[in-house]
Amino acid sequence: MFTPRTPRVVAARRLRRRRDREASGRFLAEGPQAVREALDRPGTVVELFGVPAALDRYAELTGAAVRVGVPVSPVTDEALAALTETVAPQGLVAVCRHLDVPLDEALADPPRLVVVLAEIRDPGNAGTVLRTADAAGAGAVVFAGAAVDPYNGKCVRASAGSVFHVDLARAADPAEAVTRVRAAGLTVLAASGYGETDLDDLADAGRLGRPTAWLFGSEAHGLPESLAAAADARVRVPLHGRAESLNLAAAAAVCLYASARALHREREE
Amino acid sequence: MFTPRTPRVVAARRLRRRRDREASGRFLAEGPQAVREALDRPGTVVELFGVPAALDRYAELTGAAVRVGVPVSPVTDEALAALTETVAPQGLVAVCRHLDVPLDEALADPPRLVVVLAEIRDPGNAGTVLRTADAAGAGAVVFAGAAVDPYNGKCVRASAGSVFHVDLARAADPAEAVTRVRAAGLTVLAASGYGETDLDDLADAGRLGRPTAWLFGSEAHGLPESLAAAADARVRVPLHGRAESLNLAAAAAVCLYASARALHREREE
Repeated sequence: MFTPRTPRVVAARRLRRRRDREASGRFLAEGPQAVREALDRPGTVVELFGVPAALDRYAELTGAAVRVGVPVSPVTDEALAALTETVAPQGLVAVCRHLDVPLDEALADPPRLVVVLAEIRDPGNAGTVLRTADAAGAGAVVFAGAAVDPYNGKCVRASAGSVFHVDLARAADPAEAVTRVRAAGLTVLAASGYGETDLDDLADAGRLGRPTAWLFGSEAHGLPESLAAAADARVRVPLHGRAESLNLAAAAAVCLYASARALHREREE
Repeated sequence: MFTPRTPRVVAARRLRRRRDREASGRFLAEGPQAVREALDRPGTVVELFGVPAALDRYAELTGAAVRVGVPVSPVTDEALAALTETVAPQGLVAVCRHLDVPLDEALADPPRLVVVLAEIRDPGNAGTVLRTADAAGAGAVVFAGAAVDPYNGKCVRASAGSVFHVDLARAADPAEAVTRVRAAGLTVLAASGYGETDLDDLADAGRLGRPTAWLFGSEAHGLPESLAAAADARVRVPLHGRAESLNLAAAAAVCLYASARALHREREE
């Protein structure tokens, strides 16, 4: 059985560091849900590790892995702990290939709903927005600028499998990403607490029914002004009570679901 | 200057424990934003601690405290660290009185939007929902059953001041809370991934325009079945993509803002 010192475990463990993820183009996905989603994407899983009890309990995953030529290796509890970050990783962890596609490919057959995360540093926030974007039917999520690594363990976990569902793209320059998204025919809406347009007014005016890219900035700093200015509109979620703002995940949920509702209705009519 | 061993610092530090918060009816609010909100609620702040630089930088808060008879005590960096949980608490922490009111009082002049959190254990989730409830215009938030302590430091911080804005109530028995909320004339909607009613359909049917209490369960376990059954409807947020669910904060944001939009429109008409 592999121990924390087995070279393949040592190599996989390095993927907990961003530098090594980027050098290898691989990352770790913990737990049966993530492993299942990863196996559903052909060519994604490179290697599967698990404690014997988990490999046995999730025999359908073990079977799916070996059928497509993925090595499955039993590891000790200590080796599993070395490879995972959660207290209860449920015994399985997969080494996966990076999933992101070039931005142009993500926009080739433009999705009706796209999310651009600009300079978002918190992996939990990024993962939660990924999950919400998936739920709202977004086809692509773009990590732009000095954003968190989408393959960060916390981001992958917070996405609850959605990192495997949507087209992920990365863009070094958020302004260029906005230009390309607009060139693909999408309206670009920047979520901003100081936006001149109220989200409900936008919905009432029927302006959410066309293909849209939502642009979100970091919770701490919001969107850089020049980037917000490059959007077609700067949209604020109305604040009915006394809260000064919403957190990023809540604001994104409200905006993306407002779009989802309008797009869905558009399609039905 | 007070040090970590000064008896009043030692006594305040105990408020990091639930047991001591409940015995004393007090809690801690960190940072200038929370302190400002607490001072805005007469009778809430019992004592203010701060490092000298912070007491000087936030002189308007220091002034507001002493004007209403609240003792302000300079503390060492070590004493501040002993009283706070964040890495950068920005130098201030206030001892506050508990804020919750009896449920009947919170419902006396029934708010048009109420949130009931049933058995929610994660303080970060609870605080985020508090913040979102405030933003959506909810008048009361009820912590029901074996829920997290609303005065938990993480909950207070995640609420970003909203713990001081809405009427907080606690109810030992979630089922009884539902009965009382309904008796106050509110429609009770249970958020559930398995709900028989789609949120968009409910909105389209104009059924969100009347006073509503939203009932949310824990992310891990959802709502107990009997509790969901006691609601007037069990409502699911539509999932357009491949995500299996939304996280609690995102689901709450979508549900509460759907109600806020309908209630707001109702009022305008």
